[in-house]
Amino acid sequence: DPNLKVFSLNSNPELAGEIAESIGVELGKCSVTRFSDGEIQINIEESIRGCDVYVIQSTSAPVNEHIMELLIMIDALKRASAKTINLVIPYYGYARQDRKARAREPITAKLVANLLETAGATRVITLDLHAPQIQGFFDIPIDHLMGVPILGNYFSQREFDGELVIVSPDHGGVTRARKLAERLKAPIAIIDKRRPKPNVAEVMNIVGNIEGKIAILIDDIIDTAGTITLGANALAENGAKEVYACCTHPVLSGPAMERINNSKIKELVVTNSIELGDKKLSANVIQLSVADLLGEAILRVHQDQSVSFLFD
Amino acid sequence: DPNLKVFSLNSNPELAGEIAESIGVELGKCSVTRFSDGEIQINIEESIRGCDVYVIQSTSAPVNEHIMELLIMIDALKRASAKTINLVIPYYGYARQDRKARAREPITAKLVANLLETAGATRVITLDLHAPQIQGFFDIPIDHLMGVPILGNYFSQREFDGELVIVSPDHGGVTRARKLAERLKAPIAIIDKRRPKPNVAEVMNIVGNIEGKIAILIDDIIDTAGTITLGANALAENGAKEVYACCTHPVLSGPAMERINNSKIKELVVTNSIELGDKKLSANVIQLSVADLLGEAILRVHQDQSVSFLFD
Ligand SMILES: Nc1ncnc2c1ncn2[C@@H]1O[C@H](COP(=O)(O)O)[C@@H](O)[C@H]1O
Ligand SMILES: Nc1ncnc2c1ncn2[C@@H]1O[C@H](COP(=O)(O)O)[C@@H](O)[C@H]1O
Repeated sequence: DPNLKVFSLNSNPELAGEIAESIGVELGKCSVTRFSDGEIQINIEESIRGCDVYVIQSTSAPVNEHIMELLIMIDALKRASAKTINLVIPYYGYARQDRKARAREPITAKLVANLLETAGATRVITLDLHAPQIQGFFDIPIDHLMGVPILGNYFSQREFDGELVIVSPDHGGVTRARKLAERLKAPIAIIDKRRPKPNVAEVMNIVGNIEGKIAILIDDIIDTAGTITLGANALAENGAKEVYACCTHPVLSGPAMERINNSKIKELVVTNSIELGDKKLSANVIQLSVADLLGEAILRVHQDQSVSFLFD
Repeated sequence: DPNLKVFSLNSNPELAGEIAESIGVELGKCSVTRFSDGEIQINIEESIRGCDVYVIQSTSAPVNEHIMELLIMIDALKRASAKTINLVIPYYGYARQDRKARAREPITAKLVANLLETAGATRVITLDLHAPQIQGFFDIPIDHLMGVPILGNYFSQREFDGELVIVSPDHGGVTRARKLAERLKAPIAIIDKRRPKPNVAEVMNIVGNIEGKIAILIDDIIDTAGTITLGANALAENGAKEVYACCTHPVLSGPAMERINNSKIKELVVTNSIELGDKKLSANVIQLSVADLLGEAILRVHQDQSVSFLFD
């Protein structure tokens, strides 16, 4: 369909290439560079008049650069008479400021939604928002896909020497752990961190039976990896036979890789919603592609078909 | 007035301090830092409920960081019940993409205006927009101040050994040169670059009499300094006795300082709309403060008084 155009910005060029291949189109021609003073310069090098345009960009680090690239691209597409401007945002950053937890805090997850709409986006396709409520921050249609099936698929095809248990590293993630557990027909456990008194170290209390089992920790985002590595070590100390960790979005900033390499985590399984760069070289990191999932979503959206079966 | 609050973000902390001093207030307490993954974290550390808040931030390099800081600050102020959110933007970046010069170009000057309004800004105070038409890109009140009086003041207080002539480095800047010339009671000249044929070097044709005179080149922005240094050298070759250059906004990116130091420019006079950092150490750079001008504008806006006398 000549009216379907897929463009990549700078966050995930590899994934974008895979998506284009998966749906059988060439990536749109476009250069995204910088003027001498650091301002973003975008040249769209083919006509997109009347087209349904899909722009692939995660708002991952450098997050402010990636957001501005996306906003400026949307502006250029709008002014070049695109029919629809569909954002494919594998990782939606700034999502952890999604409520006023303290006085005078911003709600950046809402701000960014507003900015994207103001620039001219007409639809969003995204993956594992930090909170599903962020869907409601948009006034345009949003398709919210899930990473769990991809992670589940990987683990179900692997042989393990023992019984599995799926572990949520905190209370907030129990629903996600339950979904993975269903796919793998395994029980769940929860790490219940508690600080007995102020200024006393947290106690890692494990709810559920993990002894002698293969534990798979699951989270949506692993950022500095503090929670997940403390959790992994607690599982090992309490008798888990092996510990795996998985997440959709490998933010992996600051001390993350060092902590993981020094922890009891045998293998970290992530998706390519965020490019790993050098971290990909780490022997214990497995990266699964979301290209087919996103490609399928693009095709179905473009053909006005339901994508709801991709949600789960 | 306890209802007047002035906050600084990270682009111009020194200027912000001077502005606060000039109007006799303390800067509002607020920290603007980064989370481990590079997302901006803003903590406003005093109540601003019901206040008229002025936020000082140039959208200078790193421009995308500075824009996002400003947007997130506006969001936080809005949700913290500020009465008005007034942006003091000494240098408004992304202004050179202010029209579609080629097919499928963005108009970033308009995009950024829309973003600031969407975030919740209620007024803008700014200095020497690259094109005065950018005022019309805002649907909120905008006060547009001029750097020429500050530059003119400096030159009028200096002794020169000869007659002055004010030179515009291109056709676009003649109005600005005329304004400076009026203040200094000097004639003007124009550098009329022309490319005789494609792929033949440009010829610098000087319109006006500069021989034996002290030439002062004026522009709004000096970025890579190509135009201004070529102009300065052409003036020297054509008999100008000395060449000075001045501008409101010292972007000075890439090869700028090297070009200036290797040119016939004796002294570069700029304002602190953009912080100079290391470049301030250059012996031939003079930086003039816009703090009193912006301070006066803030006070008059806050007191619902006209600022039009500051325009000229
Ligand atoms: N980029 C970030 N890195 C680390 N912490 C963050 C970030 N953004 C927001 N937060 C904090 O994380 C908390 C929310 O995290 P969560 O409980 O996982 O939803 C909020 O209190 C924020 O202050
Ligand atoms: N940050 C920038 N640095 C250099 N050139 C730019 C920048 N932004 C826009 N431009 C280009 O500068 C031209 C406009 O400059 P002007 O003629 O001075 O208004 C446009 O054609 C833009 O492509």
